[in-house]
Amino acid sequence: MRVSYLGPKGSFTQIALTKYFGDDLVQVSQKTIGDVFRSVELNDSDYGIVPIENSFEGSVNNTHDLLIGSDIQVYDEIQIRINQCLLTKTNDISKIEMIYSHPQSFGQCQKWLRNNLPNAQLIPVLSNSEGAERITSDNEACIGSKTLANLYSLNLLNENIEDSKENTTRFVILSHTQQDKSDNSKISLIITPPNSDASGSLYKLLKPFATEDINLLRIESRPLRGQLWRYVFFIDCEGHIDDKNIQNAMNTLDDLDINVKILGCYPSYKSS
Amino acid sequence: MRVSYLGPKGSFTQIALTKYFGDDLVQVSQKTIGDVFRSVELNDSDYGIVPIENSFEGSVNNTHDLLIGSDIQVYDEIQIRINQCLLTKTNDISKIEMIYSHPQSFGQCQKWLRNNLPNAQLIPVLSNSEGAERITSDNEACIGSKTLANLYSLNLLNENIEDSKENTTRFVILSHTQQDKSDNSKISLIITPPNSDASGSLYKLLKPFATEDINLLRIESRPLRGQLWRYVFFIDCEGHIDDKNIQNAMNTLDDLDINVKILGCYPSYKSS
Repeated sequence: MRVSYLGPKGSFTQIALTKYFGDDLVQVSQKTIGDVFRSVELNDSDYGIVPIENSFEGSVNNTHDLLIGSDIQVYDEIQIRINQCLLTKTNDISKIEMIYSHPQSFGQCQKWLRNNLPNAQLIPVLSNSEGAERITSDNEACIGSKTLANLYSLNLLNENIEDSKENTTRFVILSHTQQDKSDNSKISLIITPPNSDASGSLYKLLKPFATEDINLLRIESRPLRGQLWRYVFFIDCEGHIDDKNIQNAMNTLDDLDINVKILGCYPSYKSS
Repeated sequence: MRVSYLGPKGSFTQIALTKYFGDDLVQVSQKTIGDVFRSVELNDSDYGIVPIENSFEGSVNNTHDLLIGSDIQVYDEIQIRINQCLLTKTNDISKIEMIYSHPQSFGQCQKWLRNNLPNAQLIPVLSNSEGAERITSDNEACIGSKTLANLYSLNLLNENIEDSKENTTRFVILSHTQQDKSDNSKISLIITPPNSDASGSLYKLLKPFATEDINLLRIESRPLRGQLWRYVFFIDCEGHIDDKNIQNAMNTLDDLDINVKILGCYPSYKSS
């Protein structure tokens, strides 16, 4: 079995992959989220795994936009706690003048950086692994996962430097197939109103869910490309596509000319 | 009059500032969106201006998160078309090996870059102005606004290289004061449900708007910091806070224990 993930090696996505699938498979590192989608679309990989949402930073826009245009299904989800570390060559924090990190990781460690390294220059890089790779001298540091310390022979100078101890990222597993029905199933949908400027259109598209007593777990809007200030809505709700109340809601939306794309049904994640 | 903006000089925010306020005032460049908020909060500036939403990339998360925690009001909004250019020292595109840009601008020019400079190395920087500043040789280029060409003595090698011709950014003007009532007023609100996991909570908070026939213009969710998978909702709707139907809706939300923060009332922007 082959699984593509948003790399490079040592990324949080790879940590999620190993937590979900274990070690007994071929892990294929991809450069971008788009590359993960393409590898599954072209059957070069059986599954793909990409981040979709962080509890602190919010949605991963690129993943949402690619889901709009792809036939790939959401097979499952998994979430992991994000523990950021400061990685260095030196053991002396006072020597650090430059810190490399993906801008999102800088965002997650703002407070810690202000309190501990207020004068260090923050240098954005495309991935935390790229940051780790750059470190050659004692005045450099990077932010990233614990696993980068082993991969790039660096010191774990500080652990858990993220501002929020609730910092969790949710990943989706992409595939051509769907899981068998489970007890605590949830559904991911993309809903495109005919015209989101129209009076109460959002209310109208949510009404069938309320009427059928369907529990909404999440709503997220994304701009509809090429159409100024129009949006599509990503909705997660409880239930399974075979359930009677879900089918009723889908039929009502269809009658209202509201387009619904089903991304997948999978067990609602219980964090352990 | 002093107005703080998200700099550096030549940023799209400065272009929006000049379009809105004209030239007859002191423009104060700030390093971050947070610095713009602080300068208004501390009365160091009369107004501030920051980006809030791009029609292609979606919401500017930082602006939304700062609005949650600040007492600053939204005084007005303005939007401008984003025209990205390729800026260079050279006139020969085949010499370009490295391109500097803010990651968001790379995102806006993906197609053009793939078609025209597929082998160039993309180097992320904190602002497009920083990218322009870095260019010293013929094998370097940057992406950014036309105004950077004059500011940094660069060639406008290609104009309008953005993928979407609908690429528009909306900016908000921050202030301690509110405008007088206008005819085509809109309201910006932040709504925090008591518990967004509860069945139909989103539907419940939208119902008072539907009952009172209030036109929703936009909804955007952001994670509630420190509370896993709970969200606040940013809502723009038509009307003025003095209108009877708006007051009815606010009272109903209050009865339901749903917290509402009014960010501001201002004229609905008509793009020219």
